[in-house]
Amino acid sequence: MRTLHPSGTRPLYAQITETLQREIADGTLPAGTRLPSSRQLAHDLHVSRITVVTAYAELEAAGAIESRGGSGTYVLPPWTTSRPAGRGGELSAALPAPELPSWQCELMPMRSMEREQVLGHVLRGPLTPDTIGFAWGAGDPRLIPLSEFRRALVEVLDRDGAAALGPEGGAGYPPLRHWLATYLRQNGLGVTPDDILITGGTQQTISLVAATLLQPGDRVITEMPTWPGALEVFAAAGARVIGIPLDEGGMQHDRLVDAVEHERPRLIYTVPTFQNPTGAVMGARRRLALCTLAEQYGVPIFEDDHVREVRFGQPIPPPLAAFDRRGDVIHAGGFTKSLIPSLRIGYVVARGPLREALMARKRTADLFGSALMQRTLWTFLESGAVARHWRRVSRIYQRRHVVMQRALERHFPPGSQWSGVSGGLVLWVRLPEGISVAALHDAAAAAGVGFARGAAFFAEPADQPYIRLNFAAVDESEIEHGIAVLGRLAKEQVRHGGHDPPPTP
Amino acid sequence: MRTLHPSGTRPLYAQITETLQREIADGTLPAGTRLPSSRQLAHDLHVSRITVVTAYAELEAAGAIESRGGSGTYVLPPWTTSRPAGRGGELSAALPAPELPSWQCELMPMRSMEREQVLGHVLRGPLTPDTIGFAWGAGDPRLIPLSEFRRALVEVLDRDGAAALGPEGGAGYPPLRHWLATYLRQNGLGVTPDDILITGGTQQTISLVAATLLQPGDRVITEMPTWPGALEVFAAAGARVIGIPLDEGGMQHDRLVDAVEHERPRLIYTVPTFQNPTGAVMGARRRLALCTLAEQYGVPIFEDDHVREVRFGQPIPPPLAAFDRRGDVIHAGGFTKSLIPSLRIGYVVARGPLREALMARKRTADLFGSALMQRTLWTFLESGAVARHWRRVSRIYQRRHVVMQRALERHFPPGSQWSGVSGGLVLWVRLPEGISVAALHDAAAAAGVGFARGAAFFAEPADQPYIRLNFAAVDESEIEHGIAVLGRLAKEQVRHGGHDPPPTP
Repeated sequence: MRTLHPSGTRPLYAQITETLQREIADGTLPAGTRLPSSRQLAHDLHVSRITVVTAYAELEAAGAIESRGGSGTYVLPPWTTSRPAGRGGELSAALPAPELPSWQCELMPMRSMEREQVLGHVLRGPLTPDTIGFAWGAGDPRLIPLSEFRRALVEVLDRDGAAALGPEGGAGYPPLRHWLATYLRQNGLGVTPDDILITGGTQQTISLVAATLLQPGDRVITEMPTWPGALEVFAAAGARVIGIPLDEGGMQHDRLVDAVEHERPRLIYTVPTFQNPTGAVMGARRRLALCTLAEQYGVPIFEDDHVREVRFGQPIPPPLAAFDRRGDVIHAGGFTKSLIPSLRIGYVVARGPLREALMARKRTADLFGSALMQRTLWTFLESGAVARHWRRVSRIYQRRHVVMQRALERHFPPGSQWSGVSGGLVLWVRLPEGISVAALHDAAAAAGVGFARGAAFFAEPADQPYIRLNFAAVDESEIEHGIAVLGRLAKEQVRHGGHDPPPTP
Repeated sequence: MRTLHPSGTRPLYAQITETLQREIADGTLPAGTRLPSSRQLAHDLHVSRITVVTAYAELEAAGAIESRGGSGTYVLPPWTTSRPAGRGGELSAALPAPELPSWQCELMPMRSMEREQVLGHVLRGPLTPDTIGFAWGAGDPRLIPLSEFRRALVEVLDRDGAAALGPEGGAGYPPLRHWLATYLRQNGLGVTPDDILITGGTQQTISLVAATLLQPGDRVITEMPTWPGALEVFAAAGARVIGIPLDEGGMQHDRLVDAVEHERPRLIYTVPTFQNPTGAVMGARRRLALCTLAEQYGVPIFEDDHVREVRFGQPIPPPLAAFDRRGDVIHAGGFTKSLIPSLRIGYVVARGPLREALMARKRTADLFGSALMQRTLWTFLESGAVARHWRRVSRIYQRRHVVMQRALERHFPPGSQWSGVSGGLVLWVRLPEGISVAALHDAAAAAGVGFARGAAFFAEPADQPYIRLNFAAVDESEIEHGIAVLGRLAKEQVRHGGHDPPPTP
């Protein structure tokens, strides 16, 4: 498209959407065409970049185009031609939406828009060429050892044939459980392969444990702030969340003791190592004290240890489960954050009736796992490629962490606060008073910079003065540019007294 | 191993297990060794085949050996050597099991052992070389077009790079939804790609819909017998199941009307096409009547249409959703039964608040799907290989269906009843009085023949006089041999008056 023909009545982005749709439909832009970058097209059409980004997003949602990683945005084949072989069938235009049946109208709307938004970013992934992905929750996909993973996949298909495409039910692929048992024993856990269940990722593990242990009205203790996905599970279970504030050594212990004594929780959910979103590491003494407390009051602890392998050289204590004497710690980990999101593989250590109950819940939830992915992960782990990957990304993320800290110092308004981390993927930043995080979020999105709003990490979302920044999934120049943009927008807000009333402390 | 040294105190199978364990540990049987078939080893050792099968099963559960499809049973590498690179770490013998914490003792035991058993077979898959897999619930994995699937996988990795390994959140990969929309429109459904959500398989879809719609105490109408995985979901949701008996045209309509009028159900769950386990096809007139009934009483219908593509040439009515005027039918399908279990991909048609609620539930359940599997499936569908596969297996399964019917006629005791089916994967057989299905199941397992006990398909399991036989996943000689074994065992029971009292009708 070369020019716009302003109609006067339609917004600019809609005109771009319609023009591109027409050009795709009439073959001017055939399938496979690479579209200009949003920056380029905005320049050519003399419109703002957010206008083009919005138009592209709309076309992508409609399935007309697709953004492919860093390589650009491409025209997809029209979906009317994606016809299953064997039958004809013509597609008419979309049918008018029927009236909703009454049973639909009673369905509950979602609870927290902030959580929706943060999880939406997680679900979208970081590979949107028009956004600097500080919002994303996992590592940099550009660093995945793609050819070694491909080799493992092909090896599994050639070696195992049809057995690799079947169900992987029960506790999961035995060799993978053996590898994990060895790995966990090296981390100080007294486990055998029979104590391990393979799940569809840490989120599924949280969901299965909650379904097994929680009844509506039960109380759950968590760090506050904490992972929004866990908060969604506890909300869906009808549980009440009691948040414990953090210092650099994890949950404030006296607050924790007080909550356990007075609230009689049914579960404690914690991310003791590189806590999400703060990056805090619970010290060894507090780990022992927490295990003792749980044992004393008979409360199980869910240890979410999903990102242990990304660390910057400082010693970190063994997992909480290594301090556990009696089996009160339900230890869970996974491969989404530190390896490959598409694997959909996590694991949990469980024995006795809990193990049986979790296996039954897993079966009810999705019947079985993917033999192909479990066998490929095992082959990939055995090849040594994963250990090399963890060492490599730890080095790279450590440098990016330093770059982000320096950029924050240089660009962020006075009064901003953050702590360095010794591993993981994210930094937690407190903005000075007078800044509306919601307004900053919108302005940053319009400038092509994403971040996670702090409000999503609290059980009772409000406009909290925090933001979470992923330093791992973005390269050094993106960090420099993105933090400069955020800093400039934040300073503008301070200068203009903020768009919204200042948040209450 | 050449001989057994009877110890007098240990059962034979345990002696075999221990001997093989020792030979694997001391290197007599190095990793990769193919073990003799159970038949061969039983012959060599002068023991019964079930003794060897039990020993192999124990070794497989312990992760020492692995059965690989039809190609035999192999020694795995010892798991103590599967050591993650980077650290040392020695494994001692398994630690003594600690005492269970009190919170574990309160966990509920499972409800139905029969359902456990049937689902256990589903989870294990059919590729156990020592069992004729009439129990398995899906198609023959040996017929999967492996090289074409492999080509699609490699194509996706080469084309999409890291984007193929990321999360696939929200509604799922747009091109896959477009393909499905075209496919469903050809089946008479008025849907657009935006009406489709990709899930982790039909079981997950059932589970998400139940979590969205059902409260404890709600009533759910199902066909009776029906899919045990759905019964487990409804039991976990605390719902009460009202079963409607079937005739050849699906749920008996007067019973259905009566139940809808008097029980005011919150959901109707149905498999109208090639019903599981009976194979019944609901006629077009009943489909229309069911939709009208649902509309009249404001009850949503879950249509589980998971095996439509496996059919033997007779015309079948369009899906229930094609008769739906107002959006009361929640139409679901998937690729586990008719294509590849390891894909873990299903889909559901949903609009409005239901769509939003299901997306939120999916996110809570496991955050997102596998971009790699969704892109590979799309590429595989687009290539035409899937349509060819469906045509091919339909022809092969149709022949196997005929072979099984003839074998049943030849071998089963008088008074056995079954109906032919016009598609799908299974036959439902009623055994004559005087036969205990539980005893038959154990005797058949000992003879290397598996089947699904009918009791699992009922909400209130009891020793029902039914068995479900998969004719699709077994080849013609396996059918002939397996049905002959089952027939002989059944006739023996009739001759001896049954092992248990005859079931009440």
